[in-house]
Amino acid sequence: MNHPVPLAQLKKPLPSEFLQALETLFEDRFTISLAMREHHGRDESSYDPMLPDAVVFAQTTEEVAAAVKLCHFHDVPVIPYGTGTSLEGHVLALRGGLTIDLSQMNSVLAVHAEDLTATVQAGVTRKQLNQEIKDTGLFFPIDPGADASLGGMAATRASGTNAVRYGTMRENVLALTVVTSDGRIIKTGTRAKKSSAGYDLTRVFVGSEGTLGIITEVTVRLYPQPEAISAAVCSFASAADAVNTVIRTIQMGVSVARVEFLDENSVRSINAYDKLNLPEQPLLLFEFHGSAHGVQEQAEVVQEIAAEFNAQGFEWATRPEDRSRLWAARHNAYFAMLQMRPGGRSISTDCCVPISRLAECILDTQADCERHGLIYSIIGHVGDGNFHVLMMVDPHDPADVANAEAVNERMVARAISMDGTCTGEHGVGMHKMDFLVQEHGAEAIETMRLLKHAFDPKNIMNPGKVIRW
Amino acid sequence: MNHPVPLAQLKKPLPSEFLQALETLFEDRFTISLAMREHHGRDESSYDPMLPDAVVFAQTTEEVAAAVKLCHFHDVPVIPYGTGTSLEGHVLALRGGLTIDLSQMNSVLAVHAEDLTATVQAGVTRKQLNQEIKDTGLFFPIDPGADASLGGMAATRASGTNAVRYGTMRENVLALTVVTSDGRIIKTGTRAKKSSAGYDLTRVFVGSEGTLGIITEVTVRLYPQPEAISAAVCSFASAADAVNTVIRTIQMGVSVARVEFLDENSVRSINAYDKLNLPEQPLLLFEFHGSAHGVQEQAEVVQEIAAEFNAQGFEWATRPEDRSRLWAARHNAYFAMLQMRPGGRSISTDCCVPISRLAECILDTQADCERHGLIYSIIGHVGDGNFHVLMMVDPHDPADVANAEAVNERMVARAISMDGTCTGEHGVGMHKMDFLVQEHGAEAIETMRLLKHAFDPKNIMNPGKVIRW
Repeated sequence: MNHPVPLAQLKKPLPSEFLQALETLFEDRFTISLAMREHHGRDESSYDPMLPDAVVFAQTTEEVAAAVKLCHFHDVPVIPYGTGTSLEGHVLALRGGLTIDLSQMNSVLAVHAEDLTATVQAGVTRKQLNQEIKDTGLFFPIDPGADASLGGMAATRASGTNAVRYGTMRENVLALTVVTSDGRIIKTGTRAKKSSAGYDLTRVFVGSEGTLGIITEVTVRLYPQPEAISAAVCSFASAADAVNTVIRTIQMGVSVARVEFLDENSVRSINAYDKLNLPEQPLLLFEFHGSAHGVQEQAEVVQEIAAEFNAQGFEWATRPEDRSRLWAARHNAYFAMLQMRPGGRSISTDCCVPISRLAECILDTQADCERHGLIYSIIGHVGDGNFHVLMMVDPHDPADVANAEAVNERMVARAISMDGTCTGEHGVGMHKMDFLVQEHGAEAIETMRLLKHAFDPKNIMNPGKVIRW
Repeated sequence: MNHPVPLAQLKKPLPSEFLQALETLFEDRFTISLAMREHHGRDESSYDPMLPDAVVFAQTTEEVAAAVKLCHFHDVPVIPYGTGTSLEGHVLALRGGLTIDLSQMNSVLAVHAEDLTATVQAGVTRKQLNQEIKDTGLFFPIDPGADASLGGMAATRASGTNAVRYGTMRENVLALTVVTSDGRIIKTGTRAKKSSAGYDLTRVFVGSEGTLGIITEVTVRLYPQPEAISAAVCSFASAADAVNTVIRTIQMGVSVARVEFLDENSVRSINAYDKLNLPEQPLLLFEFHGSAHGVQEQAEVVQEIAAEFNAQGFEWATRPEDRSRLWAARHNAYFAMLQMRPGGRSISTDCCVPISRLAECILDTQADCERHGLIYSIIGHVGDGNFHVLMMVDPHDPADVANAEAVNERMVARAISMDGTCTGEHGVGMHKMDFLVQEHGAEAIETMRLLKHAFDPKNIMNPGKVIRW
């Protein structure tokens, strides 16, 4: 997919003293090799790569600050890079510049099990953190599909399947260390669970996608592993029945830990990818956390609601290995879908609406996909009113891409008309900047722009993302 | 208590065309009467009143915008006023100017029971909201002691007794309507439960204490009334035993809805004020929300933990009238304490620390109060690591005030040294501006200042609060 802006106009060659200074600082962790630049100029979106001019691998906050100071002095764009799993072009070097790869900042700095908090370097991934704290009896619940870095997850305000119970990065980040656009190092909070002490800088940077500063350390909340977990899966004759089951569950205040919707296309693709035999119908996947009694109670209520909507084949998965298999399949849904159109790329979009509008929003979107002959699937963290559409396109066929983009535009307009948002968890990147204006209105965007100009007056922090300068 | 800044230097007379324009717009809802100005120049802090030059009573967002536009044009300070129950001098007109009273903006604009959300004008109080939604089976949990307005609660990032389970205003505000410093009207979010759509303006304004803009409408999350509620009260030989019971409870992940600590001074004062016969010892007050079974399960776990710390007189209050009596007493603790020194005023402070440090922080603070002969009490939303110290002083005795302020300073330093915060829920106001610097450090304060300068370049929005210009 091509970007409408002629890149040549935006890029200028980097000063040689800038590159030399970086090489002196980072030695063999500085590179201008084409392979490395290509690797860092892409994400999981359908955009063609846009390459930075150079890449450094930082190991400390101080190194990030030193690199940013150089970028600030020389007016060079700077892009933080975690695992490259973003979906809306977040890490593409639209105007060239320097990519700071944070994957070597992968130390868990402190686990305060007694306070249910951990502090990690930004490059630590969610799976790594959970592995390292396994023996404490605690876990970190936020799980976007990919094994993303916590810095990247904070920067995109990520969530995932557990958000319906545990919240998103917005609720679970207590404090950040951030390098500002002029290379200063700030701490945005403490380990106190709540605070009324001044402006909420933590949440200013959470979701700012590298456009206001670079997150180098993250302090998150942890949770005791639940005493009991059970999972259930059931199928429905229609997507409406499945989603209405979820709406009723949420309205009744049942505290489900996870509830995922998969349309029949998703089920078909994961059956093929994961060698499963799930009925190829709309499906809900539930998980319950709590005491043995509590889990049973919640599950019974949900099973009753599902029965009202004619759920079929309600099946329990209480054994850890059965649960893992189901959730692994769910987390593979993206990759499973890629197999449905070999050589294609996916346009992966999401939106989020108030729960009462969810069935309508999903059904209308589904009808639109069908009407326009897309190869697509719809899956969702439906307990939050959040769902995803994966559309497989031939990136070199403009009509195909335009068809999918038009469906996306109508989905976003639909969500906004329902008092929802143009993205529940993927973020804005380059792809949703116009939708952001549509959602918030010109006056609120102007206020966001004040923030951007104040925090990044030279427009060097991941320029061309979130809002237009 | 006197403020160190010579006010005369800061105030200048308001232009007569400004006053005339306001009178034209607001007619009999515009006043310069001394009584009204005195009423609006004070809060529940121990500061002497500082009077605005004029007061208007706004009824719509558009009226607020019109008033702010005039203030912006004429460089007049503007202070939003809800119920005047803040504790750190938030609404005092340090530099004179215009106070905009929002108490007539008291309409519940929309209740979306099916989405668990409500949108209210900023002057709606928490009790009013709960009264108006009673029949929906939903409730709004955030309860600072006072019956504060939701606009004020959002502006101070308020919380209260239920925050341990339901979160604070930070977690429960979905969207705001805000009038910016130049009189524009913006909406900061949607009714979607989560969003990754751009900068989190909602949380920029939550906790900004009127210094970045004026909140005129608030959309909040609601919760289903729990199927079952039970409360329990128990006493301890020492504050340490009481607080350690709480620490263990939180560490085990028991989902208590409320857990309040009252030291023996508080218990003594509420016994006198509410005609109760509670044992005059450190006390914990618990509440559990959930299913009948769930509530019982949680309560049993907590009772076991309390027994390990030698709790005495564990008593259940399952009847609503008994529960109400206990919680009313808790909410009266502030007023009860005022009676302990007739003619005195209270310096009410709070801090919040990681839960594992809570016992140490409370005990050291208690010892400091004793050592310095204060008339004081300590009460706390201890499940969050948050506690309050109420110190009764003679506001006209500088030594008395200085003695209390020194205890406050040491408490804040102690909390910060434990990676905690200088205020868990009261906010900064005029009183904690230096502590804010101490907590966040000069670099983070500089970043907060960038935000203030960008959003309020003329420094007219509640000037002299939160951070120094």
